[in-house]
Amino acid sequence: MMSGTWITLQPGVDVAAVRASLQALGLWTEAILGTQGGPPALAVAPHSRHVPVRDIVAVPGVQDVMTAPSAHPRVDAQAGVQVPVGRALIGGPGGAVLVAGPCSVESEEQIEAAADMVARAGAVLLRGGAFKPRVSPYSFQGVGRTALTWLRRAAERVGLGVVTEVLGEADVDEVAELADMVQVGSRNMQNFALLRAVARTGRPVMLKRGMTARVEDWLLAGEHLLAGGASHVVFCERGIVGFDPSTRNLLDLGAVALLKHVHRQPVMVDPSHAVGRRDLIPALSRAALAAGADGLVIEAHPEPGRALSDGAQALDEQVLGDVAREMKAAAAR
Amino acid sequence: MMSGTWITLQPGVDVAAVRASLQALGLWTEAILGTQGGPPALAVAPHSRHVPVRDIVAVPGVQDVMTAPSAHPRVDAQAGVQVPVGRALIGGPGGAVLVAGPCSVESEEQIEAAADMVARAGAVLLRGGAFKPRVSPYSFQGVGRTALTWLRRAAERVGLGVVTEVLGEADVDEVAELADMVQVGSRNMQNFALLRAVARTGRPVMLKRGMTARVEDWLLAGEHLLAGGASHVVFCERGIVGFDPSTRNLLDLGAVALLKHVHRQPVMVDPSHAVGRRDLIPALSRAALAAGADGLVIEAHPEPGRALSDGAQALDEQVLGDVAREMKAAAAR
Amino acid sequence: MMSGTWITLQPGVDVAAVRASLQALGLWTEAILGTQGGPPALAVAPHSRHVPVRDIVAVPGVQDVMTAPSAHPRVDAQAGVQVPVGRALIGGPGGAVLVAGPCSVESEEQIEAAADMVARAGAVLLRGGAFKPRVSPYSFQGVGRTALTWLRRAAERVGLGVVTEVLGEADVDEVAELADMVQVGSRNMQNFALLRAVARTGRPVMLKRGMTARVEDWLLAGEHLLAGGASHVVFCERGIVGFDPSTRNLLDLGAVALLKHVHRQPVMVDPSHAVGRRDLIPALSRAALAAGADGLVIEAHPEPGRALSDGAQALDEQVLGDVAREMKAAAAR
Amino acid sequence: MMSGTWITLQPGVDVAAVRASLQALGLWTEAILGTQGGPPALAVAPHSRHVPVRDIVAVPGVQDVMTAPSAHPRVDAQAGVQVPVGRALIGGPGGAVLVAGPCSVESEEQIEAAADMVARAGAVLLRGGAFKPRVSPYSFQGVGRTALTWLRRAAERVGLGVVTEVLGEADVDEVAELADMVQVGSRNMQNFALLRAVARTGRPVMLKRGMTARVEDWLLAGEHLLAGGASHVVFCERGIVGFDPSTRNLLDLGAVALLKHVHRQPVMVDPSHAVGRRDLIPALSRAALAAGADGLVIEAHPEPGRALSDGAQALDEQVLGDVAREMKAAAAR
Repeated sequence: MMSGTWITLQPGVDVAAVRASLQALGLWTEAILGTQGGPPALAVAPHSRHVPVRDIVAVPGVQDVMTAPSAHPRVDAQAGVQVPVGRALIGGPGGAVLVAGPCSVESEEQIEAAADMVARAGAVLLRGGAFKPRVSPYSFQGVGRTALTWLRRAAERVGLGVVTEVLGEADVDEVAELADMVQVGSRNMQNFALLRAVARTGRPVMLKRGMTARVEDWLLAGEHLLAGGASHVVFCERGIVGFDPSTRNLLDLGAVALLKHVHRQPVMVDPSHAVGRRDLIPALSRAALAAGADGLVIEAHPEPGRALSDGAQALDEQVLGDVAREMKAAAAR
Repeated sequence: MMSGTWITLQPGVDVAAVRASLQALGLWTEAILGTQGGPPALAVAPHSRHVPVRDIVAVPGVQDVMTAPSAHPRVDAQAGVQVPVGRALIGGPGGAVLVAGPCSVESEEQIEAAADMVARAGAVLLRGGAFKPRVSPYSFQGVGRTALTWLRRAAERVGLGVVTEVLGEADVDEVAELADMVQVGSRNMQNFALLRAVARTGRPVMLKRGMTARVEDWLLAGEHLLAGGASHVVFCERGIVGFDPSTRNLLDLGAVALLKHVHRQPVMVDPSHAVGRRDLIPALSRAALAAGADGLVIEAHPEPGRALSDGAQALDEQVLGDVAREMKAAAAR
Repeated sequence: MMSGTWITLQPGVDVAAVRASLQALGLWTEAILGTQGGPPALAVAPHSRHVPVRDIVAVPGVQDVMTAPSAHPRVDAQAGVQVPVGRALIGGPGGAVLVAGPCSVESEEQIEAAADMVARAGAVLLRGGAFKPRVSPYSFQGVGRTALTWLRRAAERVGLGVVTEVLGEADVDEVAELADMVQVGSRNMQNFALLRAVARTGRPVMLKRGMTARVEDWLLAGEHLLAGGASHVVFCERGIVGFDPSTRNLLDLGAVALLKHVHRQPVMVDPSHAVGRRDLIPALSRAALAAGADGLVIEAHPEPGRALSDGAQALDEQVLGDVAREMKAAAAR
Repeated sequence: MMSGTWITLQPGVDVAAVRASLQALGLWTEAILGTQGGPPALAVAPHSRHVPVRDIVAVPGVQDVMTAPSAHPRVDAQAGVQVPVGRALIGGPGGAVLVAGPCSVESEEQIEAAADMVARAGAVLLRGGAFKPRVSPYSFQGVGRTALTWLRRAAERVGLGVVTEVLGEADVDEVAELADMVQVGSRNMQNFALLRAVARTGRPVMLKRGMTARVEDWLLAGEHLLAGGASHVVFCERGIVGFDPSTRNLLDLGAVALLKHVHRQPVMVDPSHAVGRRDLIPALSRAALAAGADGLVIEAHPEPGRALSDGAQALDEQVLGDVAREMKAAAAR
């Protein structure tokens, strides 16, 4: 049920009885009154169960349901979609897909080794950043465009598709040409100029959730992409801002369940950035799939100790393999 | 790895090499320097993988690991414990347990019907509130002590144990006498007078996480209970404060995974209060179990439309049964 | 404007024109539509300017304003009240009042020295805790009841009133007898058993805001107190949960302005707990007064280095005097 | 005191005595211990008072202070700077400056009327957006480049400087040519491609705080600008994410005080976006100045009812004049 929904009542009805019927449907309501003697109405809390309007209108005593039209019709029209990306089908009947690879593409050798490791684990898409958003201007910023070619070549050799992030408008065309799916990062979820540029390429986009984005804002950012020409939007939860330093960010699987089971959108989860600690990634990978994720995006590196960025959260081949095996077992059930 | 851990280095070592070895172990480190020419040291981020001190000290170039002694030794000593509550064993080899029942005990008839429904679903503990914490003084505050007797009688008839919340110090003895496990609610997690009174009864306690409690604060509240005499503390995640109104609270399964897989504590999840919306409870129940929960606490009501509190989030018999069947299937794997 | 307000429109009106008129009044609106052909209505965002209903109904095209009745009528009835506490008048024409003293009453000598220092600074109320809420069970928990007597005696000797916190229901009567205003701490804002016990004493209560309490929840906690018999409630902002470790908590002066200028409630600010760092307390004291606070609650200690709790945030006599002088200068303008 | 600071102790000292001395200075410390028999050390909480290293080292028993080198040396080097922008001097001895104007430049007539109104109020800089970041792709996105010319012309006619936001890399040069200070918006605080492009123009930049940015992240974004060539960075607080819907965002004046009084950076406050409601803007403007702001950025519109964006929070001429008069009175004290 959307934010800002009201239910009007037929004159003279027993308000408590109507509220009980709506509560039976899973709606939290509050009675509201006017000052001019008109009939009362009911305000519906946004954390109510999603109930189709026709089922509400069918409740005796209800006159109508009033709400704002959806602000993201193109996203809504995507409901239930299956998104082909390289050989993968996100949201398809084959079960959840695995996207894995290093934080950064560091060298040709490293990405070749990573591609082998990722393919052996059974992933279908290789990830790796050519351009890195770094909070310090003095940190490693990524190798740049050359890395895109390395990434593509390594992926093709082992039969994987490519997902990679674009940071600047000037790089959009080159990234879109070499990637099967273009990633827009968390910090750029509301970088509307970048959204517009990425959308124009017509590519499918993996849109990471902003660290402070409400689900509605996230869907609206997806609407920017679809309205601008993107073929599909795949939403990716990667942790939001929290107040507990014991995990890097705060994984919000309630939002994943909401996107999947209510909005019926293609949705992935990146547990690596969500918690930042290797010892929790397997458990949260399982939890993400159980919540409804169509796939996992996991940082993995052939030699985590040598990674130039985010090595402490990268899985090695063995743990990545464990996660992948569990995914297959879950898909087989 | 705890907040506030530092690693001292042997004089003259290659700091980058040591950091790489620690990164390979899953530690995020930052080099820190003094002003008086002493050797550098490393600060470890709290969202690092948990690594035993002996493994860190074994890294070439590391001198020592410095950290504050644990602030919750009694909680730490509980690691791996199995908690007997009525017929149930929380954290035991039989798999996750189901605790279910209505938000409030409303009448003898209602709790008898609820007990039947909960027993049929295969739960081992019946929940239900005699005293209700309500944000408004004008809302239904619970039936009070009489409800405790109804609850106990209904549970015994169907062979269930009882978990129920205590709100005031004056009611602690009566609640402890009638409950197999005493619940301390989210709003009272740092009500130290109540913790002390509850602890004195020697009962096992289910301690709900405060809406803004860091994991460390939650463990410290558990320490208050164990230091005061509680036999065991079972931690229960029920959603923390968030900024998105589309769920009632924000379910933090990262904290659950942390408690289970790093701290090895008995931990339950209450998905009902976490999201407040019936359409997401089954998916998040599965996710909670996948993250490592030892059990679920679920609000269920024989007639959700008639519930005097939280009816919109209560499951009916059918959906409760679905959740219970999935738990059994998961336990059988 | 409250959450959940809805404006109905006369049939056939130009919705955009009505929205423009309401925007001119400071209301954020969104058009909502039914499915059965009835006239549209407008949902009003809760962060809109407070506008009296009669001014909204006077806008051409508006039919009525629908909203839930206030959930805290007794708090609303307090609007504009002046609260006598000892010699002080909170919210009175004499300007903001200063409440100061140590975190804990540690010894008779310490509280006598503190009382002298606080009186010299020009404060009207002495604060100091006999019972301390501590996150660890192994920290200093306060001296207990004896400290109440020391506190009262020291305050009377120098002509100050007393504000002190009560933690447990069993101590309520003794605290109420010795204090001019009883403090309910942040962690107990929704400890409803304690609220009830404190209210029964009929004393004025200083109610600290819970670390995650919305303003509406805070007002409702105040309603619990007034409905239970408290003579007055004085609200005290002391910082809410934040995500930045560079201050201890997050001071929310927007809430202070809202309480003062919209709800017209007596409101104090405790900058000491809000930021926890002595170097920001003077600036935030000024800011709190500018936002509309009726007084400041400041931790001060004759020897901050020797304080048994919170010494790092306690002001010494000199800085406390500076803050007090600025208050007087502001009041004189 | 920075995050991650650690104090080493001389062998054999009385740790409690050293901690007391440091507490007297305003430092929160915790003792940490190694496993190999070395001397203990002290971890310093980040919310401690800022104390120069030399004062800490002078405490008897302290050996050294260990900390990471500042991650933002160029920002640190700006400490105490005065930033000339048009005729204005931000951080100068003349007191706080007023930046005002409409959310969007909507037409030539509108911005001319706004310029007159803003100049009459005594502002020194005119603000107004040619490009608007909007959460919906279907909302008014701003007039675009033409609006920049209107804005410049209107400002020059009345003798004001210009501050305006740039959203896309492609527009940076044109914005930099027409603006005296370029604004980077909240949603772009970590859009590193945009920061780099803006920095290259060499212009002073007003950097709004991201809605979830810690102060350290904000300073690092400033470092990106200064390292890339920006002449100066002026930080602007505009509210962070909160959990209370009664204000649009959560104004963090603790961060403002920290930037001004500890980091000594030029800092402005935008109360309009912070609270979104006109009835609180005057009080929070006063509070912002009291906390140490070097200026205010306020949305004002000649006809708020007709504004195409954010009209509900825009001040009209009268209220803007009231705020401006208070600023002058404060500066004169």
